[in-house]
Amino acid sequence: MKFRLEKDLLGERKIEASAYFGINTKRALENFNLCGKIVNLNLIKEIALIKKAAAMVNADLKEIGNVKANAIIKASEEVIDGKFDDQFELSAFQGGAGTSTNMNVNEVIANRAIEILGGEKGDYVLVHPLNDVNMSQSTNDVYPTALRITAIRQIRKLSGCLADLQEELQIKENKFSDMIKLGRTQLMDALPMMAGQGFGAYAKAIARDRWRIYKVEERLREINIGGTAIGTGLNATNKFIYEMTDVLQNLTGLGLARSDYPMDVTQNCDVFVEVSGLLKSLAVNLLKISNDLRLLNSGPRGGIGEIILPKVQAGSTIMPGKVNPVIAEMVGQVSMRVISNDTAITMASASGQLELNAFTPLIAECLLESLELLEKTVIIFKEKCIEDIQVNEKRCEKNLESSTAIVTALVHYIGYDRASQLAEKALKGNKTIKKVLCEEKILSKEKIDEIMNPYQLTKPGIPGK
Amino acid sequence: MKFRLEKDLLGERKIEASAYFGINTKRALENFNLCGKIVNLNLIKEIALIKKAAAMVNADLKEIGNVKANAIIKASEEVIDGKFDDQFELSAFQGGAGTSTNMNVNEVIANRAIEILGGEKGDYVLVHPLNDVNMSQSTNDVYPTALRITAIRQIRKLSGCLADLQEELQIKENKFSDMIKLGRTQLMDALPMMAGQGFGAYAKAIARDRWRIYKVEERLREINIGGTAIGTGLNATNKFIYEMTDVLQNLTGLGLARSDYPMDVTQNCDVFVEVSGLLKSLAVNLLKISNDLRLLNSGPRGGIGEIILPKVQAGSTIMPGKVNPVIAEMVGQVSMRVISNDTAITMASASGQLELNAFTPLIAECLLESLELLEKTVIIFKEKCIEDIQVNEKRCEKNLESSTAIVTALVHYIGYDRASQLAEKALKGNKTIKKVLCEEKILSKEKIDEIMNPYQLTKPGIPGK
Amino acid sequence: MKFRLEKDLLGERKIEASAYFGINTKRALENFNLCGKIVNLNLIKEIALIKKAAAMVNADLKEIGNVKANAIIKASEEVIDGKFDDQFELSAFQGGAGTSTNMNVNEVIANRAIEILGGEKGDYVLVHPLNDVNMSQSTNDVYPTALRITAIRQIRKLSGCLADLQEELQIKENKFSDMIKLGRTQLMDALPMMAGQGFGAYAKAIARDRWRIYKVEERLREINIGGTAIGTGLNATNKFIYEMTDVLQNLTGLGLARSDYPMDVTQNCDVFVEVSGLLKSLAVNLLKISNDLRLLNSGPRGGIGEIILPKVQAGSTIMPGKVNPVIAEMVGQVSMRVISNDTAITMASASGQLELNAFTPLIAECLLESLELLEKTVIIFKEKCIEDIQVNEKRCEKNLESSTAIVTALVHYIGYDRASQLAEKALKGNKTIKKVLCEEKILSKEKIDEIMNPYQLTKPGIPGK
Amino acid sequence: MKFRLEKDLLGERKIEASAYFGINTKRALENFNLCGKIVNLNLIKEIALIKKAAAMVNADLKEIGNVKANAIIKASEEVIDGKFDDQFELSAFQGGAGTSTNMNVNEVIANRAIEILGGEKGDYVLVHPLNDVNMSQSTNDVYPTALRITAIRQIRKLSGCLADLQEELQIKENKFSDMIKLGRTQLMDALPMMAGQGFGAYAKAIARDRWRIYKVEERLREINIGGTAIGTGLNATNKFIYEMTDVLQNLTGLGLARSDYPMDVTQNCDVFVEVSGLLKSLAVNLLKISNDLRLLNSGPRGGIGEIILPKVQAGSTIMPGKVNPVIAEMVGQVSMRVISNDTAITMASASGQLELNAFTPLIAECLLESLELLEKTVIIFKEKCIEDIQVNEKRCEKNLESSTAIVTALVHYIGYDRASQLAEKALKGNKTIKKVLCEEKILSKEKIDEIMNPYQLTKPGIPGK
Repeated sequence: MKFRLEKDLLGERKIEASAYFGINTKRALENFNLCGKIVNLNLIKEIALIKKAAAMVNADLKEIGNVKANAIIKASEEVIDGKFDDQFELSAFQGGAGTSTNMNVNEVIANRAIEILGGEKGDYVLVHPLNDVNMSQSTNDVYPTALRITAIRQIRKLSGCLADLQEELQIKENKFSDMIKLGRTQLMDALPMMAGQGFGAYAKAIARDRWRIYKVEERLREINIGGTAIGTGLNATNKFIYEMTDVLQNLTGLGLARSDYPMDVTQNCDVFVEVSGLLKSLAVNLLKISNDLRLLNSGPRGGIGEIILPKVQAGSTIMPGKVNPVIAEMVGQVSMRVISNDTAITMASASGQLELNAFTPLIAECLLESLELLEKTVIIFKEKCIEDIQVNEKRCEKNLESSTAIVTALVHYIGYDRASQLAEKALKGNKTIKKVLCEEKILSKEKIDEIMNPYQLTKPGIPGK
Repeated sequence: MKFRLEKDLLGERKIEASAYFGINTKRALENFNLCGKIVNLNLIKEIALIKKAAAMVNADLKEIGNVKANAIIKASEEVIDGKFDDQFELSAFQGGAGTSTNMNVNEVIANRAIEILGGEKGDYVLVHPLNDVNMSQSTNDVYPTALRITAIRQIRKLSGCLADLQEELQIKENKFSDMIKLGRTQLMDALPMMAGQGFGAYAKAIARDRWRIYKVEERLREINIGGTAIGTGLNATNKFIYEMTDVLQNLTGLGLARSDYPMDVTQNCDVFVEVSGLLKSLAVNLLKISNDLRLLNSGPRGGIGEIILPKVQAGSTIMPGKVNPVIAEMVGQVSMRVISNDTAITMASASGQLELNAFTPLIAECLLESLELLEKTVIIFKEKCIEDIQVNEKRCEKNLESSTAIVTALVHYIGYDRASQLAEKALKGNKTIKKVLCEEKILSKEKIDEIMNPYQLTKPGIPGK
Repeated sequence: MKFRLEKDLLGERKIEASAYFGINTKRALENFNLCGKIVNLNLIKEIALIKKAAAMVNADLKEIGNVKANAIIKASEEVIDGKFDDQFELSAFQGGAGTSTNMNVNEVIANRAIEILGGEKGDYVLVHPLNDVNMSQSTNDVYPTALRITAIRQIRKLSGCLADLQEELQIKENKFSDMIKLGRTQLMDALPMMAGQGFGAYAKAIARDRWRIYKVEERLREINIGGTAIGTGLNATNKFIYEMTDVLQNLTGLGLARSDYPMDVTQNCDVFVEVSGLLKSLAVNLLKISNDLRLLNSGPRGGIGEIILPKVQAGSTIMPGKVNPVIAEMVGQVSMRVISNDTAITMASASGQLELNAFTPLIAECLLESLELLEKTVIIFKEKCIEDIQVNEKRCEKNLESSTAIVTALVHYIGYDRASQLAEKALKGNKTIKKVLCEEKILSKEKIDEIMNPYQLTKPGIPGK
Repeated sequence: MKFRLEKDLLGERKIEASAYFGINTKRALENFNLCGKIVNLNLIKEIALIKKAAAMVNADLKEIGNVKANAIIKASEEVIDGKFDDQFELSAFQGGAGTSTNMNVNEVIANRAIEILGGEKGDYVLVHPLNDVNMSQSTNDVYPTALRITAIRQIRKLSGCLADLQEELQIKENKFSDMIKLGRTQLMDALPMMAGQGFGAYAKAIARDRWRIYKVEERLREINIGGTAIGTGLNATNKFIYEMTDVLQNLTGLGLARSDYPMDVTQNCDVFVEVSGLLKSLAVNLLKISNDLRLLNSGPRGGIGEIILPKVQAGSTIMPGKVNPVIAEMVGQVSMRVISNDTAITMASASGQLELNAFTPLIAECLLESLELLEKTVIIFKEKCIEDIQVNEKRCEKNLESSTAIVTALVHYIGYDRASQLAEKALKGNKTIKKVLCEEKILSKEKIDEIMNPYQLTKPGIPGK
């Protein structure tokens, strides 16, 4: 194996000759030698995009020569295209507020640019990872800016998926709009409703999520690029700051805006808590809906069984023929994961100190995982669970017909206490409410039929009036 | 002790003759005989307001006679005025989605209305808690509506306090705008900044909180009154629903809006998760700011000591003269409490099933506690901690002058690696950067002074250019 | 209104003449003027117990005269007896690591002792809150010691209640030991089981909780009294430390042990996280059991309906005759509250810095609330929900008889794939498994009956062998 | 690309001919097509171990022929040896209580066993994934058993690392045992202490963690293998159950024990909450210690600077020479991740329903991630942060000498109030306490020196007596 020698303030270090990353990445790989998750690649690519933008701006401002700038731009584009994915293997839980990740990108781009210019990797006289690739930047403005861009892109995808899910739920609202069934409060038999109404309620909740997630993009648009180390902007000229924002707008197509107080954006992470909190609201809705579907689908014979979820795989290694609501269960698990990611994001965000939050890598990892998991989950939920859902109308009727809660329709006529006694009588005597009403001769059979028309009971108004 | 006899579907029960509550409350007091928190009184009063509104509307719709309606209205007003606070002692953690609380209000109002009409408490022929006071309503529309109204009122108060806090922080931003100090990232010496800039960053964060909390009111305005038990509106006429919204708007002065899909509002609690998530963002900011202040105030001699928090009480029972940052600590504790309340709100909201969430009492308790605690805390934080804060300029200068991070200003001239070596040399030799620069004769003394002017280092731009 | 004048390092302050608390408490009342929870009174009383013990020891060591000591002892006893409950109204979320609470106790005891000695409140020459009542102590050893004692006492109560709940569940295990019903996995029909077996599984879980909570007392027994401000023991002699532990053992009857490293106990709060974590395990079990009961009780007609929970109150203000599982719901809510308290305890414990954790008041409030709520809840759960639970045998049979999962019993004979096809056939054709088996003539009717005996299917072994 | 055709209850499906997994895995890959984490490979290998054990037992019981059993055993061993790691790519967040993972293992082993027997993959007549590999088992006993074994192995590793960390902290306790420094409570100057004492307090906390984690293994030893689908043991003979436990004991070398109530172990997950709760206690200690080290290391010039953490990498892309406490920051981030994993484990465990918990895959993922991250983190923390830590004695002395808290030593002689005034005078006059004492002539210089000896102040006792 061949090596090259690199040097930093701690001394010299051998680096595999084939590696595009350099000594800073090498040390970080050893320091954060944890199992598991590595840095989100989408984040890496947005950092590379910032490097490209900075090279463009610095060339324009004559801070860097065109040849060098073009090499950096080309190298950055290759990173964005995924040609160096295997050079980014740092742990997601690295210390250092993202410095190692920024270094990793700086080094890979520098070495690739050196190659492009005909040099040998490690010959940083040609292109220097810090003096050139990182020129006028600091991790503390690059990293939050990249995180915001990554989050916005993911938020847009998620918002789109939510629109599809909402629409699918509304299709079901319409499809099942005249299938009557039993409503339940606190799991106990309550008033009649249309099966479609339930899906309509889900659609409304998802519509709110869609809106919230769409709107929160605004908050993420404010970027602190040019703030450098602590937000004061040392070593970044005002020209650089203004041009960077423009170039990044063009490259991303997003409505990014220069923060008027970069020191705020550099140190405060409440925006990520806000976004995560909204993802948690979505998770809560998904959990509630998926739990409802599992409940309504329970059976097929010994449960409620009012809906039938599509079968997507065999459910048991021991019970032949058993099929489980695995998509709804997956939705539930992802929802809980998102909720737990929010715990990490909250704690990490609250742990910022003075001019920086050292724990942004954890925030980034958890926020982007939540966004990506939710996007995929919402798509799968729609396609493999909601689209082919069926209502078991026979079962709905059976569960409804015996319910005594429709006695509510009589309160207007006989008062709560009397109605309560009738319900009691029906339950104890194992009879229907109608039967008891007839027996007790409280109202005429015609009036009873008029009042107790279950379709009437699913709408506002006093039945029979 | 005197008693009266009341009856429900479980049988008869003796009630203290002096009690305004009735059998349902009595049973609930026994069933939920937990220690600790009782139902939030502000919530009780908004439920009473809904009872008043319903009596007005039902009278107008001729569903109830004027005499009876007026008695209910008057009784409701007395509850709102706090004359019966001692009649509401149910546990905040009661089962039943708020039914017991609604019953408690119904019963107290009914019995008081009976008295007003010259009857004896318990004579529900005169005024019935359910048939009359609860007419056209269900717990499942009354309770969420009251919770939303209570939350909005509290949100407005909180938003106002946040405006004051933001303003106070901006006053400090200006006051300390030319006091130079050391910035710190990851707790390590970083670039110079103005003491005021730090307060400006806090002000920006609080400004976002203020805006978020102000905006989220919108989401709470949608009320489901008239949806009755499951949101379908059975037993509430469309006229009732429309008029109720109008009357509640008038009585509260809030921009309440009738939900166009009450079944959604009845069963979905994501809005409370959203609000709580925003309160959590605020808590994260308060925690960060209060931690920063404690850190900067540390000492008075063996710590950082760059700011001096006002003394509000003696700090130790054993160390004479010790004063602690107790207000900032209180702010931290309340913040953690708010974050933990969010856990409860999230779990409870996710636990809704089908047409109702049975765990709304927990949501209400935690949400209202967070809102009330935050309001008081923000006021105290401003008045007893921020207002009289001082900057210890001498200490700031001392901490800054020795820092080597200002070598950053030279990167443009000598490159990162060379600058790194100088910093190393300064640290090891226990010298200042300027001293080392002079010794090394890299730049003329004039140039050094020009570049290293600390005031210059707190602004964008390349120093010395 | 009459006043007396008191003085501290901040200056003079008028105190209501009737107040037993003094200037430190007064300032704290103003500083922490939050709504809501005040300091747990049980904690106050254990602090008073420590004051009593200290007076006994200091008298024995001749550090304080007998007359004064006896007055302090008597005053402490009166506080323990609850005679001064109204003098302890500080917010539970106070800043300052418990100093204000300790001050409050010191002041009330001092002023009461002064009265006992014939003096006037405020005449601290007679008995001084710090020099005398707090002699050889610091908040930082008194408060954690008192918290541990309070927690141990509460843990013992809880452990006892869990024993009762476990026993009651075992009674139900036996009572329902031959009532066959359908088991469900992932809410889908699975194998047959006895109703009693389910209660047996609950009993096992609660038995673990009981054991865990019983055992964790050990960890709390280690106390740091005598460590004073930072655990080094300055101003407390070794004799004082040893005697205090002995006296506290005698007064409490608990196996308290002097920490061999008080600096550890003074600054580290992991033990409270451990205890809270175990309470969370209990909460998880209670949530799971209460959710199961609500599910099995669902109906009465349109749900699963296999068990019948006792009726404890009317359930709806609009649906007459409706009864809800409110006790199980209360159990669920308390469980979620306990889980959310764990969030606060975890964050607060992790926020300790150097020689002290400033956030112990939040830890104390949340831990003691969880312990007290759980105690009451476990008692109510047993008495009002488990004791009179019934199994609806008819419904159990009906749900079971149609289930196809018993085809599992045939895997040994015909393999998984063939069995799977039979189950499919039964479900599609709306037939029972037995019917399909007979039609398909795979096994003789006798063999089928032998294999498919549901009682056989609830035990280990291959049916029919 | 070549394919084979497989079939299940949903119909036929093409499988890549090269794949060892079959149709069930294929469908699961499509159903749970989420980004990110795949199933923990250590868990996969313990499931394979159970398959090996089951083949051994079933052969012994003559339920399966020796040739087939040996092929299954050999295939299982190859899976354990990691030869088929690339065949296990299912999402960690899969629905279905682990069924897909169990299927994945069954299929890979079956197809590999078929190959070993000379057949072609997919020819399940030779070896059937369910009838043979899964014989007498269900996911619901295999999966929890494998999870417990995996967790125990990881717990032992973690416990060992904690022992090393504790020892290293004790080495530092001794090494720094006579270096005096300032103690701090609530971040404010408090009494003197030895630098070593602080490390001793950390060592005590880690010792508790080590003990807790060592002890909790007991709880995980109870396995439900043989309980099959719902814990009743259908299709598993008692002989199988007993022999499986024995064989698993032998194969693992762990003290595994057959549950006497497998239905409990099958449905209740409180044990995982307990373990996770203890990991959370460890996380809290690690967070506290790492935060303390960051604080004491702050500077190097403008902070507290009393300790010097080893330099492990350059810290900034913009500030040359800056070194950050990245290992301590990594420890903090992992701790927060562990705390957030606990949220997921708690919610998932509480979401079990009736005879099974459908969310065990989330529990497994989060628990094993926490265990693995903590093991690595504790090693790195010790090796790269604690081992080469240094105390900056000069700085310690400087911070200490100016502190006024040592006035505490005088309380015995002059009382709290007088001492308080002296401290105030010293602070305001910018003098040392000793200076003020001399000026005030309260005590002779000799007595002052005797009392104020800082070394004396780090031990129990009243100074000067």
